[in-house]
Amino acid sequence: MNDIELVSANKSFGGWMKRYRHRSQVLHCDMVFGIYLPPQADQGKPLPVLYWLSGLTCTDENFMQKAGAQRLAAELGMVIVAPDTSPRGEGVPDDAEGAYDFGLGAGFYVNATEQPWAQHYRMYDYVVQELPGLIEEHFPVSDQRSISGHSMGGHGALTIALRNPARFKAVSAFAPIASPINCPWGNKALPGYLGDDRDLWRRYDACALIEDGARLPHLLVDQGTADDFLENQLKTGLLAEACEKAGIAADIRMQDGYDHSYYFISTFMAEHVSWHAKRLTR
Amino acid sequence: MNDIELVSANKSFGGWMKRYRHRSQVLHCDMVFGIYLPPQADQGKPLPVLYWLSGLTCTDENFMQKAGAQRLAAELGMVIVAPDTSPRGEGVPDDAEGAYDFGLGAGFYVNATEQPWAQHYRMYDYVVQELPGLIEEHFPVSDQRSISGHSMGGHGALTIALRNPARFKAVSAFAPIASPINCPWGNKALPGYLGDDRDLWRRYDACALIEDGARLPHLLVDQGTADDFLENQLKTGLLAEACEKAGIAADIRMQDGYDHSYYFISTFMAEHVSWHAKRLTR
Repeated sequence: MNDIELVSANKSFGGWMKRYRHRSQVLHCDMVFGIYLPPQADQGKPLPVLYWLSGLTCTDENFMQKAGAQRLAAELGMVIVAPDTSPRGEGVPDDAEGAYDFGLGAGFYVNATEQPWAQHYRMYDYVVQELPGLIEEHFPVSDQRSISGHSMGGHGALTIALRNPARFKAVSAFAPIASPINCPWGNKALPGYLGDDRDLWRRYDACALIEDGARLPHLLVDQGTADDFLENQLKTGLLAEACEKAGIAADIRMQDGYDHSYYFISTFMAEHVSWHAKRLTR
Repeated sequence: MNDIELVSANKSFGGWMKRYRHRSQVLHCDMVFGIYLPPQADQGKPLPVLYWLSGLTCTDENFMQKAGAQRLAAELGMVIVAPDTSPRGEGVPDDAEGAYDFGLGAGFYVNATEQPWAQHYRMYDYVVQELPGLIEEHFPVSDQRSISGHSMGGHGALTIALRNPARFKAVSAFAPIASPINCPWGNKALPGYLGDDRDLWRRYDACALIEDGARLPHLLVDQGTADDFLENQLKTGLLAEACEKAGIAADIRMQDGYDHSYYFISTFMAEHVSWHAKRLTR
């Protein structure tokens, strides 16, 4: 049994919003995650789980406080789990200049191979393996998992779902980084965490994974047209092209006038929760 | 024309979440307020406005980011305005020890008479007069105003509505400070801002105002039973008693297991927005 320690609990929409601390064996540090348990969690039947991956600079809290996902999760009986965006704590290295887009708060959901990052920065394994294992050990959940995220977390959700279709049954994203290989954020993070091995970079790039043969049965993406990062960093068009070439049924919606903020996410969050719920067996 | 300067704009539920800065003549400092303009604001017909008063330590942002009020406001065509909780900026005095419950972030919606507070700490006049004047000058809104708030802001909403029934047509509150005269927060704020004049204190105490003859046509209050401040600070029971004695039709709901957080507020926010919308002419 891997211990988890309750950090806080707030009743929310008839269920419970809780935060737990645990020792991560994969990341070699203490981690905190947020979990929303809908009222149905008390009724004994295992519930499906939506994993949410947040963007640069976020912790486990931003999404749970601002996205308004609990309302629909309570209605539909979905558990939602939100991990932190990087390893944390004493001994975990950070970018030398404290950059917002590398190091703490910017794990990019990869398994780092370079020093000094390789020991702690293994967010890919944490999200794919350790965290679901912990959730399934401690909470009344089924093996029906899906995944979503925003920006860097949208990139994480897409790449994790493309590489683990049996483990995550559905994936959606808000304003994902479509192709880290082809944008400044990725061109800093990929060599920084992974070194020069460009074949390895392709394992963490949604468009490259699709080109290399990975498939999804369906995909929902919302992207604001007024998002300041759209053109230089997110490049939604590359994802649309890759999906079209590969015959992936992707619903990529350009949302007129919306930006990169949680005001955008909260507007469409209920649709995403419903979309996931429909694709998970209950 | 009193100028307002746009600070930020985010599309939200088809409408716009905006923040503006302006020079307050009442508070003698620059102030920022948040306003949610639903999609109906573009259609020419003046819309009703719900004023939201936040609690201790908040700015104009907490409510707009965390309460999830925009969804229903967009559906029902309500404008929501959220002011800051105190005057701000250079030259505005703060509590000598930086206490969270007095000075900056803790204006208590009174007109201070004591030094050094009297020049700036006039949040009562700001919320009752200056801010609605500014909103009605710059936005497509009607004179249908209502008011709500949380904790210190619940106290503000109740006392302002009780003293200005013609100006605010409806009032609701989340976990309001029911009687500042009878709790530690109030026993610090009232003498601090108002001095020893206990008759003046009664003008800023919902229960005392009701005892002294003020009336409301209806009232909705939600209060969590697991709220750590309920027993010592909020004392909802005093408000229930005062309303009952006065024959005020108050729906004071004790919500089982909920605490003082925005997770509590967001759970019941949609009901409050609907409740206000029903009581305003459109």
